[in-house]
Amino acid sequence: MSREQIVAGAADMIRRRGLNATSIREVAKHAGTPLGSTYHYFPGGKNQLATEAVRLSAEIVTRVLDKKLRQGPAEGVRAFFGLWREVVAGTDFQAGCPVVAVAVEEAAHPEALAASAEAFRAWSRQLAESLEQHGVEARRAAQLATLVVGAAEGAVVMCRAQRSIQPLDDVAAELTALLESVISART
Amino acid sequence: MSREQIVAGAADMIRRRGLNATSIREVAKHAGTPLGSTYHYFPGGKNQLATEAVRLSAEIVTRVLDKKLRQGPAEGVRAFFGLWREVVAGTDFQAGCPVVAVAVEEAAHPEALAASAEAFRAWSRQLAESLEQHGVEARRAAQLATLVVGAAEGAVVMCRAQRSIQPLDDVAAELTALLESVISART
Repeated sequence: MSREQIVAGAADMIRRRGLNATSIREVAKHAGTPLGSTYHYFPGGKNQLATEAVRLSAEIVTRVLDKKLRQGPAEGVRAFFGLWREVVAGTDFQAGCPVVAVAVEEAAHPEALAASAEAFRAWSRQLAESLEQHGVEARRAAQLATLVVGAAEGAVVMCRAQRSIQPLDDVAAELTALLESVISART
Repeated sequence: MSREQIVAGAADMIRRRGLNATSIREVAKHAGTPLGSTYHYFPGGKNQLATEAVRLSAEIVTRVLDKKLRQGPAEGVRAFFGLWREVVAGTDFQAGCPVVAVAVEEAAHPEALAASAEAFRAWSRQLAESLEQHGVEARRAAQLATLVVGAAEGAVVMCRAQRSIQPLDDVAAELTALLESVISART
């Protein structure tokens, strides 16, 4: 089991159970790695492992956004919602977003919380830059980007509670239409 | 300490720490109530207490929406965001939404999760009905209502992570403008 696989296992546990219910011991067990070597890989313990789990998840989304935004903001947003749809539907509503999971528990793990803030910022920045490239002024672009990230994350939570993919699909439909109308008004 | 005060204390703990980190013992201590009488009030234990905490929080929001939506959908949405702004800014980014907290942890408390789903549904329904009364067709009204609820909840999480109220303000500005334009196109 590689170091990255342990981090991926931790991310999966966090997005399902939350940070509080995720222990190094459980992550090691899940990965089939001795506890000792898990601590060897992650001397900073749970805070380090959670931080890396958040960063890995952030990076996966960033890569997809990076690629899809080349086809325009609406395509990027569609891919962003597609990712979340896959997570939620693919786990029968058992998993959500590890970045959210870390942010909704009292800040016992400040480094992981900072990684969570950075993930939201990075995704928002990518979306905002793409909107600016399509003629949207900077302030409005930032505002729309925050709306996309926030609405997707909130819809993921609603889907899990309602055991239905409808909230994500509703929000994706509204936001792709909104972005397309904002962009077409400028070109 | 009244029964309702214990429930309110549980809701506060859940919206700060998450459900997993909230125990009946801690809630009783927080409320200054003997553990025995807490179990007397809530024979169903943590599941019952969490369920009632989610319902109480849902009801508080429902009452505000009910009142403010009489002045129109945009006014209702402004009040909805105002509530979340107060929670997040008023607790120095330490508290979020207990309905979300319950939904992001693996379903160990099915009754509480069902109450969480019902809370999202109730708020969405209130907003959708108000939009319909202002000329928006039913399907679109439902879609916009889900966007408002999801985006507010996601923005709360982003605010906590980033220790900034900006995400909520950005999302509120976008959504009140969107609703006003949808409604004015129909009147």
